[in-house]
Amino acid sequence: MTDSLDLLVLGNAIVDVIARTDEAFLAGQGVPKGAMALIDEARAEALFAAMGPATIVSGGSGANTVVGAALLGAKTGFVGKVRDDELGGLFRHDLKATGVRFDVPAATEGPATARCFVLVTPDGERTMNTYLGACQGLSPADLDTNLVASARVVYLEGYLWDPPAAKDAFRKAVTIAHGAGHAVALTLSDAFCVGRYRDEFLALIREGSIDILFANIGELQSLYQTDDPEQAIKALRDERDGRGLHLLGLVTRSADGAMVVKGGEIRSVAASPVGAVVDTTGAGDLFAAGFLAGHARGLDHVASARLGALAAAEVIQHIGARPQGDLVMLAKAQGLL
Amino acid sequence: MTDSLDLLVLGNAIVDVIARTDEAFLAGQGVPKGAMALIDEARAEALFAAMGPATIVSGGSGANTVVGAALLGAKTGFVGKVRDDELGGLFRHDLKATGVRFDVPAATEGPATARCFVLVTPDGERTMNTYLGACQGLSPADLDTNLVASARVVYLEGYLWDPPAAKDAFRKAVTIAHGAGHAVALTLSDAFCVGRYRDEFLALIREGSIDILFANIGELQSLYQTDDPEQAIKALRDERDGRGLHLLGLVTRSADGAMVVKGGEIRSVAASPVGAVVDTTGAGDLFAAGFLAGHARGLDHVASARLGALAAAEVIQHIGARPQGDLVMLAKAQGLL
Repeated sequence: MTDSLDLLVLGNAIVDVIARTDEAFLAGQGVPKGAMALIDEARAEALFAAMGPATIVSGGSGANTVVGAALLGAKTGFVGKVRDDELGGLFRHDLKATGVRFDVPAATEGPATARCFVLVTPDGERTMNTYLGACQGLSPADLDTNLVASARVVYLEGYLWDPPAAKDAFRKAVTIAHGAGHAVALTLSDAFCVGRYRDEFLALIREGSIDILFANIGELQSLYQTDDPEQAIKALRDERDGRGLHLLGLVTRSADGAMVVKGGEIRSVAASPVGAVVDTTGAGDLFAAGFLAGHARGLDHVASARLGALAAAEVIQHIGARPQGDLVMLAKAQGLL
Repeated sequence: MTDSLDLLVLGNAIVDVIARTDEAFLAGQGVPKGAMALIDEARAEALFAAMGPATIVSGGSGANTVVGAALLGAKTGFVGKVRDDELGGLFRHDLKATGVRFDVPAATEGPATARCFVLVTPDGERTMNTYLGACQGLSPADLDTNLVASARVVYLEGYLWDPPAAKDAFRKAVTIAHGAGHAVALTLSDAFCVGRYRDEFLALIREGSIDILFANIGELQSLYQTDDPEQAIKALRDERDGRGLHLLGLVTRSADGAMVVKGGEIRSVAASPVGAVVDTTGAGDLFAAGFLAGHARGLDHVASARLGALAAAEVIQHIGARPQGDLVMLAKAQGLL
């Protein structure tokens, strides 16, 4: 018998290797600022050797989201693949330490646990280079059908389109969740990721596989191939699946806050005030965390989006993409919980 | 031909695994607040499983010191032992990335790279539990005689008395350094460490093996077994080796600053102002770094101690025991360089 979950996240299980850097280093290494680029093992070693002193913390977009939601009181689980190495142990520990269920066994052979080299420039922007390592082993066999069916929301990373078999796990999870009458959420992850898989993401939306879509404005513009943010939001507003249903869209716009797009309507939510922006890594992940935790608590979409904005504001004020402050206390102080 | 160094540090090569915690957790785990306790592998696993989400950064007392000195412009090298594992790779990378020479090969078998579980309470105090792992393999064979002889100051951790063969490396380094006419510095490391090895540390001082002694006031009180800090400082002031020579003593007293004890005289240096104290890990290590970097630049003892106070102030204002700010810029802003 599986206890029901508020949220089950499928994502790449990644440990972040973070270093401060400057624009000249990014230019010298030829990495596009602000994006997430995939790299192979040799490139990972060369980049690590060239970068400055590092801080290692657990990361992974979906994993950051599930941790944030757990810290806001949601009952959560995670599906992803690590290797049985030191960084895999750290990743698993950090999920369990925040109360996230994570039972997928570690790979005992093959590539090491995935790592993302996060280069943070003085403006707080992060540039990511990811070696997927053990994530490439995630497959439908890693899904526990009862666990997936028990979750009121199953949340999937667009990044799962990168490793070869993860998209099969993704599709299987959609089938199980919808079979159980539950909702499926997708994050578009990254504008370059959308560039790689645009047609497949649009097909998922239009075939009715996705009930809740998270995107930042750049990802949405990439999805609809437009330079005009307003046009991208309108395209999302008018999007319907094969049954004529609107999905629920959550669009983040950095300091300009977020938009809730549902049933042909658009509502805006302001960004939460922040002091210094130290490291924007995880802003979108934590917006999704706050929104989904609010949703699980029965808040309406706008109130949930405000909780998302609060969680995003917390995580950009320090290095690393996992919350360091007490999100529940922060939310209560602002009357959001 | 070996280029000459300003500073060669022998120390335990340790990676810090840092988590925020509270007093209740420390009490429940039975760990003495503020101290460094040695733990075995089984205890390390149990403690890691019980503690909260972790941040991993390179640490090690002497290694923190050598990095701080390098960041302040000193030509530096490090001797210590890691395993050829992921955390050993991080430790080596972080030394090289700050310009510290580190050529000791990693162990290819035996225990994993050492880790220190650093538990930070809301008051900023740190409590440390160390699994020495690969450090236990450090031996005299790891010393490059030419490299040791090339260093104007050889700096040794009191903690080296814990692993079995490291004290032999320590004694060999003293012989080489003094044979080359260079100075030997010792840090007493920790009051509990002094409790374990008091007689041996006093013998080192009194036989003339130590030219420069770093201690915080608690360590000095442990050395001289007195509850009275003033009495401990006077005992240090009156200490002479077999040739009748005074050593140079640097005594740190947290917010009360530091004292330079030399030739029967005592001079005080104020602590540098700080905002919020976030994590005191590395305060003593960075004081030594600043002092030794000032010494290498030809500053007098008081000016060097001021540079030490500045470096210590930087490191206690963030999580982790390695500087994050630009120490040279900070020192120039305060007219210390």
